[in-house]
Amino acid sequence: MDTAICLLSCQDKKGIVASVTGFLAENDGNIVHIEQHIDHELGTLFMRVEWALDDFKIERGKIEDAFKPIAERFGMSYHVHFSDEKERLAIFVSKFNHCLYDILLRVKSGEFHCEVPLIISDYEDAHEIASMYGIPFYCLPKNNDNREEVEDKELALLKEYKIDTVILARYMKIFSAKVIEHYPNRIINIHHSFLPAFIGGSPYKQAYARGVKIIGATSHYVTADLDCGPIIEQDTVRISHSDAVSDLVRKGRDLERIVLARAVGRHLDKKILTYANKTVVFE
Amino acid sequence: MDTAICLLSCQDKKGIVASVTGFLAENDGNIVHIEQHIDHELGTLFMRVEWALDDFKIERGKIEDAFKPIAERFGMSYHVHFSDEKERLAIFVSKFNHCLYDILLRVKSGEFHCEVPLIISDYEDAHEIASMYGIPFYCLPKNNDNREEVEDKELALLKEYKIDTVILARYMKIFSAKVIEHYPNRIINIHHSFLPAFIGGSPYKQAYARGVKIIGATSHYVTADLDCGPIIEQDTVRISHSDAVSDLVRKGRDLERIVLARAVGRHLDKKILTYANKTVVFE
Amino acid sequence: MDTAICLLSCQDKKGIVASVTGFLAENDGNIVHIEQHIDHELGTLFMRVEWALDDFKIERGKIEDAFKPIAERFGMSYHVHFSDEKERLAIFVSKFNHCLYDILLRVKSGEFHCEVPLIISDYEDAHEIASMYGIPFYCLPKNNDNREEVEDKELALLKEYKIDTVILARYMKIFSAKVIEHYPNRIINIHHSFLPAFIGGSPYKQAYARGVKIIGATSHYVTADLDCGPIIEQDTVRISHSDAVSDLVRKGRDLERIVLARAVGRHLDKKILTYANKTVVFE
Amino acid sequence: MDTAICLLSCQDKKGIVASVTGFLAENDGNIVHIEQHIDHELGTLFMRVEWALDDFKIERGKIEDAFKPIAERFGMSYHVHFSDEKERLAIFVSKFNHCLYDILLRVKSGEFHCEVPLIISDYEDAHEIASMYGIPFYCLPKNNDNREEVEDKELALLKEYKIDTVILARYMKIFSAKVIEHYPNRIINIHHSFLPAFIGGSPYKQAYARGVKIIGATSHYVTADLDCGPIIEQDTVRISHSDAVSDLVRKGRDLERIVLARAVGRHLDKKILTYANKTVVFE
Repeated sequence: MDTAICLLSCQDKKGIVASVTGFLAENDGNIVHIEQHIDHELGTLFMRVEWALDDFKIERGKIEDAFKPIAERFGMSYHVHFSDEKERLAIFVSKFNHCLYDILLRVKSGEFHCEVPLIISDYEDAHEIASMYGIPFYCLPKNNDNREEVEDKELALLKEYKIDTVILARYMKIFSAKVIEHYPNRIINIHHSFLPAFIGGSPYKQAYARGVKIIGATSHYVTADLDCGPIIEQDTVRISHSDAVSDLVRKGRDLERIVLARAVGRHLDKKILTYANKTVVFE
Repeated sequence: MDTAICLLSCQDKKGIVASVTGFLAENDGNIVHIEQHIDHELGTLFMRVEWALDDFKIERGKIEDAFKPIAERFGMSYHVHFSDEKERLAIFVSKFNHCLYDILLRVKSGEFHCEVPLIISDYEDAHEIASMYGIPFYCLPKNNDNREEVEDKELALLKEYKIDTVILARYMKIFSAKVIEHYPNRIINIHHSFLPAFIGGSPYKQAYARGVKIIGATSHYVTADLDCGPIIEQDTVRISHSDAVSDLVRKGRDLERIVLARAVGRHLDKKILTYANKTVVFE
Repeated sequence: MDTAICLLSCQDKKGIVASVTGFLAENDGNIVHIEQHIDHELGTLFMRVEWALDDFKIERGKIEDAFKPIAERFGMSYHVHFSDEKERLAIFVSKFNHCLYDILLRVKSGEFHCEVPLIISDYEDAHEIASMYGIPFYCLPKNNDNREEVEDKELALLKEYKIDTVILARYMKIFSAKVIEHYPNRIINIHHSFLPAFIGGSPYKQAYARGVKIIGATSHYVTADLDCGPIIEQDTVRISHSDAVSDLVRKGRDLERIVLARAVGRHLDKKILTYANKTVVFE
Repeated sequence: MDTAICLLSCQDKKGIVASVTGFLAENDGNIVHIEQHIDHELGTLFMRVEWALDDFKIERGKIEDAFKPIAERFGMSYHVHFSDEKERLAIFVSKFNHCLYDILLRVKSGEFHCEVPLIISDYEDAHEIASMYGIPFYCLPKNNDNREEVEDKELALLKEYKIDTVILARYMKIFSAKVIEHYPNRIINIHHSFLPAFIGGSPYKQAYARGVKIIGATSHYVTADLDCGPIIEQDTVRISHSDAVSDLVRKGRDLERIVLARAVGRHLDKKILTYANKTVVFE
């Protein structure tokens, strides 16, 4: 069943849900999902409504325009997506390939509804996997001297391959603000700690040194502040004194795969709205 | 902020959400929460909508009537609750008092918005706690010979104290169908296993004998079939070969308290609908 | 560091630990791990002791003999393993390949210390993966008419490839007792439910029908009783009313992979002892 | 069954386990539990051994002396405890009483093997509970001006009541180094965050502001560095965008109770050793 999904936000007022759902009812749109969240502190409303396109009277290209009067009345930010449109992902990876593998397997099994036309790495390690799956692969080593030049190449590739969303699947280099600005809320990172604990490098070593009893992983949208963007998903796993750093790395791998997969899945399903450096993640 | 809550269900059709929210908008009801679930197999829609009573134009006693035309149009079952109306709970308990204590502390701390005017037990153990909290206590030992007579007393007490919902907080006796019929979806039990595993007596002994690595607790509405009613909430905790039955009992106590508390909390917040021996539990 | 591992069990008596560790100390064996469990109901002691082979005075082939006097004194069952000896696994799989993939990736990344020289399936689906990893693959469709004949082939292959342990990675056929007897506590299955709930076929459908709020997966040694062998590992994941059977399948896949991986890892590390249809799983 | 428990640590060498268990065997001590941990980075061994006192040939008061030669040979730190000796706990609390209640109920139910002869608070709120349980209660408000004077009173009370271990059950004041030095590894705090995230005041507000998807609680021994002592136990619970700060507080309460209870339980069972600002917590 093909559906349309509208994500919107605005100041909370009476009549918003009635107006939106009235618009859909008048045009024969059967609602499949509707969810809203109100941040009572800020007085802001967030909504996700998904409806069947079967009998819907307005054709796709004209929905956003037809909805405009309601959006203007309430001062809404809004965007309409369609469930049958596949996003195009670029995956960045360094030496550890478990998250890359995991995403490719989920695409292959049909769990993720998207395309992966591009893999970029600062190492050659992932070349073999990319070949196995027939995906174009670019090895672009990056250091402080060539950063700007390499990032220009990366941006050009992202443009050439018409990339919608960038996944940092254990990519260990930092992007400059210029790259990030091109993809606001469209670069998803997996950090191998329970943020905001253990920001930056070697979080498992940091966790071992502190003697924590639980480790975590965090998936977030990338902003200019390192490891400080809006958090999409987190999870944790128990460790003990008997776990060495290498055990944390091993236990963490399973966590990283699952936390990143959940974040990417929610993103592809258009279930995430961001505001105030936070996310609303609908079920 | 006082609110009204409408729980409804009906066959899924176009225009249901628009009609319900249009009704609220026309009468100046600002929606605080709206959630819906569609069982696509059965084609049934379930909705919970909560709105502020502040400026709402229809007075409380007349809301259900005013809503009737919409309900009839879509063939809805519906009920309107008010957030400032406290349910009256009766707690049944046997020898283990941890769940009873837990509920009373949550009421006292304001976490649960309800009253507990009645405690019934087949043992004297809970008498002291009831006294401490100033709650009327009745000790009604029950056996196969006096079951009918005692249940008549229990029903009379439930009526006398105007009880809305019965909580079986580790009450080890079974109710006959007659009692259960008086309180459909209004008797909540905590069973100390991960149902449907280990139905009936001594589930921790059963779990130990089977050698499971995780134990659970299940809170459900009571129906005539033992431990087979609609499940409201479950949770689990890890055990190992080194745990004896007494360790399962100890670890299980914390689980039972929390699982029962979550179920009672959801019930008091009118977040549960039942159908097909299942529950819809809104967030 | 190469180590020897002794797994033993016997009736609990005074002096067992002292005798075993005294034997090691006399022969310059530095203990790396020692763990014991006593089942106080049965009066049975289980021990796992692992020591460095560096300076150990007894050569490998003679350790079991040298230990015999102590074993006889206490009536011990015992077996000595060596950490540098790789077990040889055969993986059986049907149509779903996620568990197969997961194991192969863990072998490749060095997480699992073993070899996988054989993959058998009743479908062709896994042929491609087997080829990618250069592993011999046999497609042996099985039905009620050819069961005996096919199982004879399977047993012959297991013998030919010198298989130590068989992994049923979502293999949907049942083995006859004859096969099972050849590999006591050496066939590991993953069942996609929280056993003992939902034994047999279609456990996700059963779970959906019952309306549980949590689903599980169970890894166990295979015995002649279907889904009733000693449980090695279990885990659970939360679901809700909004999850269809297909969502349970999707959420369950991640669970199955991790539960099976933990069980296989423990088995390869010689951390499991079985008794009374249960397991002792040391940390 | 009365048992003795020896906790010891030393540089790892050959023969330690054999010497300790040989000593017990020679004196007819039947080992009930034995666990060891080696920190391979530091080359340090930690051991906990528990044995039955029934037939043990050495009387209690002489065990430490009898063991001294072995301890000296290996340069061990060691201490012998007895399972039938009840620790005496003082509980400090401020305005939130849920952790206090929880501990008292676990003592009453027999889960905790200890005495609670003293409750101290900077508020009057807990007076009623202390009275209900017949426990001496002192209200000692503390501010920057009277800190030294009040802490002297507190130390005098701890001495008067022969307190072994101090539990800070959501006590919101900081102790000066002088108090802490008197009770090294004997003051247990519960901090309502997943340390090292959100150190200091209002961790739930900090967590809400950061937009995390999971909150935690941490129980640790108190050292002079605020919230930086050796971590004993942690756990986490999932939250979402729909949870306000008050929801975090509510969900956190259950977490705090359980995390503190597990830490206190392990401490009372003499299962904790500390080193390098970490803990070894045996099962």
